Amino acid sequence: MTSHPLKIIIIGGVAGGASAAAKARRINEAADIVMFERGSFVSFANCGLPYYVGNTIADRHELLLQTPESFWKRFRVKVKISHDVLSINRSKQHVEVKNLKTGAISHEPYDKLILAPGAGAIVPPLPGIIAKNIFTVKTVPDSDAIKTFMAEHTPKQAVVVGGGFIGLETAEALINLKLDVTVVEMADQILLPFDPDMATLVSAHLREKGIHIIEGDGIRAFHDRDGIAYEAELQSGLRLSMDLAILSIGVRPELKLAREAGLHIGDAGGIVVNDHQQTSDPDIYAAGDAVEVRHLVTGKATRMPLAGPANKQGRVAGANAAGGDLHFPGALGTAIVETMGIIAAKTGLSEKDAKTHDYDYFVSVTHPLDHAGYYPGAEQLHMKLTVEQKTGKLLGAQIIGEHGVDKRIDVLATALTAGLTVEDLEQLDLAYAPQFNSAKGPVIMAGFVAANTLRGEVQTITSEELQYKLTNNPDLQLLDVRSPSEFAEQHLQQARLIPIDNLREHLHELDPQTETVVYCRVGLRGYLAVRILLQHGFEHVYNLTGGMLSYPLLPENTKTQNI
Amino acid sequence: MTSHPLKIIIIGGVAGGASAAAKARRINEAADIVMFERGSFVSFANCGLPYYVGNTIADRHELLLQTPESFWKRFRVKVKISHDVLSINRSKQHVEVKNLKTGAISHEPYDKLILAPGAGAIVPPLPGIIAKNIFTVKTVPDSDAIKTFMAEHTPKQAVVVGGGFIGLETAEALINLKLDVTVVEMADQILLPFDPDMATLVSAHLREKGIHIIEGDGIRAFHDRDGIAYEAELQSGLRLSMDLAILSIGVRPELKLAREAGLHIGDAGGIVVNDHQQTSDPDIYAAGDAVEVRHLVTGKATRMPLAGPANKQGRVAGANAAGGDLHFPGALGTAIVETMGIIAAKTGLSEKDAKTHDYDYFVSVTHPLDHAGYYPGAEQLHMKLTVEQKTGKLLGAQIIGEHGVDKRIDVLATALTAGLTVEDLEQLDLAYAPQFNSAKGPVIMAGFVAANTLRGEVQTITSEELQYKLTNNPDLQLLDVRSPSEFAEQHLQQARLIPIDNLREHLHELDPQTETVVYCRVGLRGYLAVRILLQHGFEHVYNLTGGMLSYPLLPENTKTQNI
Repeated sequence: MTSHPLKIIIIGGVAGGASAAAKARRINEAADIVMFERGSFVSFANCGLPYYVGNTIADRHELLLQTPESFWKRFRVKVKISHDVLSINRSKQHVEVKNLKTGAISHEPYDKLILAPGAGAIVPPLPGIIAKNIFTVKTVPDSDAIKTFMAEHTPKQAVVVGGGFIGLETAEALINLKLDVTVVEMADQILLPFDPDMATLVSAHLREKGIHIIEGDGIRAFHDRDGIAYEAELQSGLRLSMDLAILSIGVRPELKLAREAGLHIGDAGGIVVNDHQQTSDPDIYAAGDAVEVRHLVTGKATRMPLAGPANKQGRVAGANAAGGDLHFPGALGTAIVETMGIIAAKTGLSEKDAKTHDYDYFVSVTHPLDHAGYYPGAEQLHMKLTVEQKTGKLLGAQIIGEHGVDKRIDVLATALTAGLTVEDLEQLDLAYAPQFNSAKGPVIMAGFVAANTLRGEVQTITSEELQYKLTNNPDLQLLDVRSPSEFAEQHLQQARLIPIDNLREHLHELDPQTETVVYCRVGLRGYLAVRILLQHGFEHVYNLTGGMLSYPLLPENTKTQNI
Repeated sequence: MTSHPLKIIIIGGVAGGASAAAKARRINEAADIVMFERGSFVSFANCGLPYYVGNTIADRHELLLQTPESFWKRFRVKVKISHDVLSINRSKQHVEVKNLKTGAISHEPYDKLILAPGAGAIVPPLPGIIAKNIFTVKTVPDSDAIKTFMAEHTPKQAVVVGGGFIGLETAEALINLKLDVTVVEMADQILLPFDPDMATLVSAHLREKGIHIIEGDGIRAFHDRDGIAYEAELQSGLRLSMDLAILSIGVRPELKLAREAGLHIGDAGGIVVNDHQQTSDPDIYAAGDAVEVRHLVTGKATRMPLAGPANKQGRVAGANAAGGDLHFPGALGTAIVETMGIIAAKTGLSEKDAKTHDYDYFVSVTHPLDHAGYYPGAEQLHMKLTVEQKTGKLLGAQIIGEHGVDKRIDVLATALTAGLTVEDLEQLDLAYAPQFNSAKGPVIMAGFVAANTLRGEVQTITSEELQYKLTNNPDLQLLDVRSPSEFAEQHLQQARLIPIDNLREHLHELDPQTETVVYCRVGLRGYLAVRILLQHGFEHVYNLTGGMLSYPLLPENTKTQNI
């Protein structure tokens, strides 16, 4: 028992730290709570920065959710901005702090410490990287600097390095400001958390909207004149003229303090915490981008530098440091990005994640309308479920589309949290009115299709598997069951046209012993064709999951996609 | 074993029947499938009818999802429209059918029968009800008749009888067509599936938009001249001039065939089926508005005349009749309606449902923004959760708002299906980008607030309970912890103003022994105030759940609501 009030020190004042401070106060009115923030702002909306750059958010004050003054008035939390914590002395239970304005160094004792140092934007040590027109988009001063530069120099050509969420949001912001934008992504695809077949729907859309996208190439150097870069040289040798560059390669957790204090750092590269957000030192809690998170599907430690988990972890860390008892079970990596009118969202495991983690899985692709087709404005969604083969449990979902993506990913994230199977998805009782959904809406339809596969009513193959079969089985019967006009517009080269409504009359022309693959536009007519063929003695019949719309490797195919 | 192909007869060709036919064919390619429909259309979008009346859906063909011809071509289902099944002979396994065009009567044998007769619009036997300008909105011919009448007579004043979903959608359609609209609801509130405090948000909004709403009054008679009603006389004696009336009182299941065939009809007034949609006769299945449904929360049989359950039941009935094995576990009564820019949605049990079914429950009300406040266009949602006191399990949810209502109700319906508690809601990993959600979005915030109550961090009371206390405890300390300007604009009469940021300095002016109720605008500052008071020895402190925005019985209060 301490005779003085419980002293809680919080290091870092953005998502995790600010949540921790507010919750600690609600749990413990008597505690002495001090929050140190190295930067000049606390509790700002960093997910809003690309929108501030692009003027969608016009007023910078909108981004500043709390100030040191408001924190004091409402929560009696002492907030010290421009204070850098230099070290943690665990045996003496104090931290060494530098006031960045005065240079003064002091020691501040703690009973409980909460680490929320966050993560910093990665800036690779490339030649020319220090040019004045190369920016990151991680803090309010970052976006201030971009806006100031734009006002003074009116740049025309921008290079965005990294095709992740922040990169694509910033690309849109720059397009809105009338710049010519090239996104350079070192990997073979943008949006790495997504499978390539899903990411390609986004890159095709962005190219159509006039953003240049270069995949599989990285920056070798920036060439500058008087400290202003005028050219980005790529590893391929390609040279891009530029007036402005944005680095959005990713973030690196701020581990220096934790590491030097001897706290346990995990294999996933973050501070290890238990489900109470407690580090290897029971008096030290941690939250936010610097900690490891238990992935709720795999059960494994990973890092998820996302605002949702950070806020929740902060709340749990704050409660527990103050004497409460909350826990944080983990997260799914649910995330969403909108860029140039297309929305991409994911939760849980992608197909490549399932492969990496050695799951016995199958995928199921559907392209339903976001609401009833008979009500104006319905748009196609592109959904991919990853499903555990043995149990039918949902492992993850990816969705691309223009409307209603956020709703379906949240429903699927909830289903995933609850451990629902695809047969449970079939039965969900979701709200239907024609402007919002269909009676058999996208999630339920995705459940139907995946559960049909699970129950063996139909066997499906992915476009990747079909390509393999086409190469390795010259006898394959490939049936296109769409209409003659759809076939005439575009079809797979080896395919034979038999429209679904005529299939029954043409069965005698086909060989039931030969391996057969059926496809249509989205997979629905193909499914019906497979059911007909199976019941007429065809033994090895497969439906192309997602149909032609999921056969993205044909460049001409992506052109006709209705996205 | 029958030597002929399995003969399946389906009675009714809309949602349940059409789904049954298509699924039966996919399961059984050999079956002989015949569908009888009394009306002239199959598989039409009845949820679209109000939008067709209001010209949002311009083309009538959009409503006709399938035709007899398309059913035959794709599914080899023989569809007989204008065929009325007169009786079922269970021992001989045949039905007696009348061709409504020729008058011919025939017998059609079956091996399996699927009943999907639906429900008819209720038309009460009121004086004058047969006037030519009084309509229901249940079928395509109904809406054709309304549109024809409107074109010929250009009505100016409309009475909509019944303030349920179809009534309010049709009211909007008529407003769009420039009519003056009065909704007459016999109950004390419109939208009966909702609690009164939620329904009142909708009625206030509709009144603001110029729809007249009369609650607690019914129609006594229509007065006509040459078969055209010109006045509706209410039970109160009020007389409404009118050129057109819409009856949207509800629907009554078509039970005649089932009853006469001796099938088991349940206490909830529908055909009893097991989870395979099998009636008391194992060769007869049933689906849609005429059957009873197991409520997934109460476990009790009820009726839910909604398209979602009907479609799913039809699919299950069709599969099982054809030799498959699917089940339908039940439903939640999830439903949504949009009218004049406001959206109301519900799932599971309302507060009054929980009372009726004798649950030990509490409610939790929140008014979060639909997306991050710092991103343009955020609007307030009004959410009410019904929670089981002992387990913390979600029992139901109601949401009113302008945007993002459909997303949150679907997430909560999924949580409800999975049996999640409000502490599980706190932990959901939902997608966050500022245009779609907040980092602590509405569902998670609702989870926080309800779980705080569940864990005893705060005790809440409803506005109803507060009114009781105000009447019965003259010593009650009622604290308004909002700002002076909010207080000046409007406050509860007995309240004392102590802004939250000043509360700690004014504690000594309050009596810790006296029962204390705190309120703010939405409940957040009130929660913080309760936490402060509890930790300073106040023993009986309550926060008004939902704050002033949930105190709807003050008429002046509803005026300032930001909806």
